Formats: sequence, structure tokens, C-alpha cells
Amino acid sequence: MNRRLLLVSNSTLHGGGYLDHCQQQIKDFFGEDVKRILFIPYALHDRDAYAKTAKQKFKSLGYEVDSIHEAASPVDAVRKAQGIFIGGGNTFRLLKTLYDQNLVLEIRKRVLEDGVPYMGSSAGTNVATISINTTNDMPIVYPPSLKSIGLVPFNINPHYLDPDGNSKHMGETREQRILQFHEEPDTPCVLGLREGSMLVVEGSKATLLGTTNARLFVRGKPATEHEPGADFSFLLNDSSP
Amino acid sequence: MNRRLLLVSNSTLHGGGYLDHCQQQIKDFFGEDVKRILFIPYALHDRDAYAKTAKQKFKSLGYEVDSIHEAASPVDAVRKAQGIFIGGGNTFRLLKTLYDQNLVLEIRKRVLEDGVPYMGSSAGTNVATISINTTNDMPIVYPPSLKSIGLVPFNINPHYLDPDGNSKHMGETREQRILQFHEEPDTPCVLGLREGSMLVVEGSKATLLGTTNARLFVRGKPATEHEPGADFSFLLNDSSP
Repeated sequence: MNRRLLLVSNSTLHGGGYLDHCQQQIKDFFGEDVKRILFIPYALHDRDAYAKTAKQKFKSLGYEVDSIHEAASPVDAVRKAQGIFIGGGNTFRLLKTLYDQNLVLEIRKRVLEDGVPYMGSSAGTNVATISINTTNDMPIVYPPSLKSIGLVPFNINPHYLDPDGNSKHMGETREQRILQFHEEPDTPCVLGLREGSMLVVEGSKATLLGTTNARLFVRGKPATEHEPGADFSFLLNDSSP
Repeated sequence: MNRRLLLVSNSTLHGGGYLDHCQQQIKDFFGEDVKRILFIPYALHDRDAYAKTAKQKFKSLGYEVDSIHEAASPVDAVRKAQGIFIGGGNTFRLLKTLYDQNLVLEIRKRVLEDGVPYMGSSAGTNVATISINTTNDMPIVYPPSLKSIGLVPFNINPHYLDPDGNSKHMGETREQRILQFHEEPDTPCVLGLREGSMLVVEGSKATLLGTTNARLFVRGKPATEHEPGADFSFLLNDSSP
């Protein structure tokens, strides 16, 4: 399998600019063969403004960006893309639009069969996984399914957040929410990517990059911590580890 | 319309026990005519433990509790109920189970036509509104719709949370998430109920109770703050204010 993925937890790290914290990894990932990247801004309402932000950032890294919302045919745009980047925002809105535009299977095919490199950030990382069951976002719209593009056979929780011991807020912690997911039958592993971390997948090899640890939730087992550089290739097997 | 509702933001307030912070309002609401309350524990996985907690608390207030998960026919249990209480937990799991058990229309009918008093807490408050589009919960399962029981024609965001100015976390604030909901067309008002607050509805009169302010989001207008005692009856009109 030619699969090449860069799945980033968050688009902006506190104190930095848009995609600043992962710009070296972006350049390493798309390399010099890719010249133009297809940007999918569906997770935010103002697509023009979002595309402008993405175009500026990628231009500074040496890439031209075409935004899919300006294409005559979104499906054709995916069919011709050299590389794909789906940005963050609301995951429900993003996934619903991907279904509405008939892009879910098209992107899967391009990435898994044709080896087109795929980068996602936040919501764009959620939709790259098997489902959006572990998004943090508010369900502002109702997509026809929570199953997503399925480029990897597990779930990711982006912006993974540790409990705040000083908080008096009584809503569930992130860990509690993921454990509730694992109370449901036949639920896959969930990789909690803290802000600052990202997963790079090259074929059947998956590696944690960035500056923060990741927390892995395997159904029925205690959660485990993993440092940057960790090998997560075992998560790419269809069967749970 | 006989409608009687007690919609509580949160089941437990920091430093207190289960439903302690609203126990006076519970007694005022169910009064002395109601002897037995039907409890719906579907939002949590361990229904036995949850029912035990609810039974103990309500017994201390003078009410017997029957848990719907112990009933031979959940639909019949709703048809016979003197009062209904839906507890908190995961809103998606709760709503999916209500649909699976054919209870959504049945509860609506009992409350809106027969005047059976309805209390909800957290997820149980979410499902009492027009939809669960403004839940905070993780979509761990896929309900057949986000439309919910519809006892009021607006949305509530329970556990409403102000932005933390000291946080370095870059996920969306609660307000940003609600504003994203209002970027979608034809979306209703959202009442943000902070922990400690609750809405009581008696027919066509709605009043904020508790110890914290509520924050109201009307699509296309600036959010507004409202103190305990505020009259929210205007939200009960079908047309947005």
C-alpha cells in the first residue's frame, strides 16, 4: 500500500501562527515532487477566508494551493490532485459536506490506491480515520454517517486534553468521554494526539512526531503514554492490538 | 398546554452530592401529588448502578423511583408514569436508545398532552429540547436523528462554560462552537445553562432558577446574559425572538 498520511492534532499551537509548529514536517512530507496541493476548507463557514490563509502559509513553504470550493467539479479536483490537505473546523460540517459532494470514497481511492499524499489537521485528521466517533466538536449538522474516509483502521482524538485538577467544572474529562466510547461494543483503538503532536504514516509504518506525548486507548486495557518517535505501526493492522 | 418541565444544567455541582444543588427545586416541582417517578438511565452504561443512585436520592426527597430498564415494557412504563426523570451521561447514547425503544414520541405525548411533569439533567435536558445539536458530548454512537423529544422549541447547552483566559489549549471555546451552530441556516436559539442553573417551564411560562447566570444565543445577534429569576417565556414561542 502506497498510503502516505500526515495527521496533525491542531492547526495552531498556542503562541504560534497557522501551521507554524508543523511546517518542517509539512515540507518533509510533501517534499519536492508535489507542487500543488488541493485544500478542502469545508470545516469552516467562510471558505474564501480559510483558503486565503492556507494559500499564504503553503506558499511560504513552496507550494501552490487550489481550494476545492473554487473548482467547477470537486470530484474532478480530487481525481487530479497531487496532494490533499483537509483543514480543521467543525468535523460534522466537514464530513457532511464530503458526503454531499461524493468525496469520501473518491479521496479514499486516491490516497489508498494512487498514493496521493494526504495531510489533515484537527477535523481533517478526524475524517481521515475510520469514523468521527471521537471528535470533540459540536454536532451542528447531521451527516449521513459517522463513518469517515477510513485511511487508517482506528480513531484519533485530536486536541487531546489532560484533566485540569484545578477545575470546578463537572463535565466529563476527555479520558472519560473516550472510555464511554469504549463501553460500546466492537469499538477500535483511540489515539489521543495532544496539541503539538502528529502521526505520520508511510505505507505500513506509523510514527509519532512533534513535541508532546500521545495517549493510546485500547478497549478494555489501561491507557498508555507514548513519546515522540514512538512506532505506532501496530495500529495499522485491522485487528485491535 | 399543561407542559411542566424542570431542565437542570448539571447533575452534580462541584463540592456537592448528586442533585444536591437542585433538591429544593425538585421538591417544588414534583410536589406532593407525584409519588413515583420513572427514571430513564440510558445515558450511562451501568444502568443498575445509575438507578441505585437515583433511587437513593429521590427517596431522601420523599419519592419512589422505578427505573425504566427494569420494566417489562418501556413504552408501557412511560404510558403509566406519574412523573419522568431522564438523567445525564452521553447524549448520543441516550437519544439513540430512546429511538430504539420507541420512546421519543411517547414521552412527548405524555408531557405535552397529558401534563406529566418531566425533569431532565444534563443529557436529559438536551433531549428535552428540539434537538441535540448543541450537546457537549462525544458522538460515541449514531442515533437515527439529532431531533429529540422537542418539549421546547429551542436548544439548550448544558454545562455552559466561559472561556478560560489562562488556557493554552487551542480547541474552540463553547461560545465559538455555538456560534458555528448559528452559521448554519434556520437554527434556533441556544440557551447556555451554566452549572448551577436550571430552567423551569410551567405551561407557557419559563423561568431561570439556580445560582448562576445563563447566556442566551440568538442567531445573528450578540449573546446576552440573564440572572436567576429571568423570564424566558418568549423562548417558548415557535418563532425565534
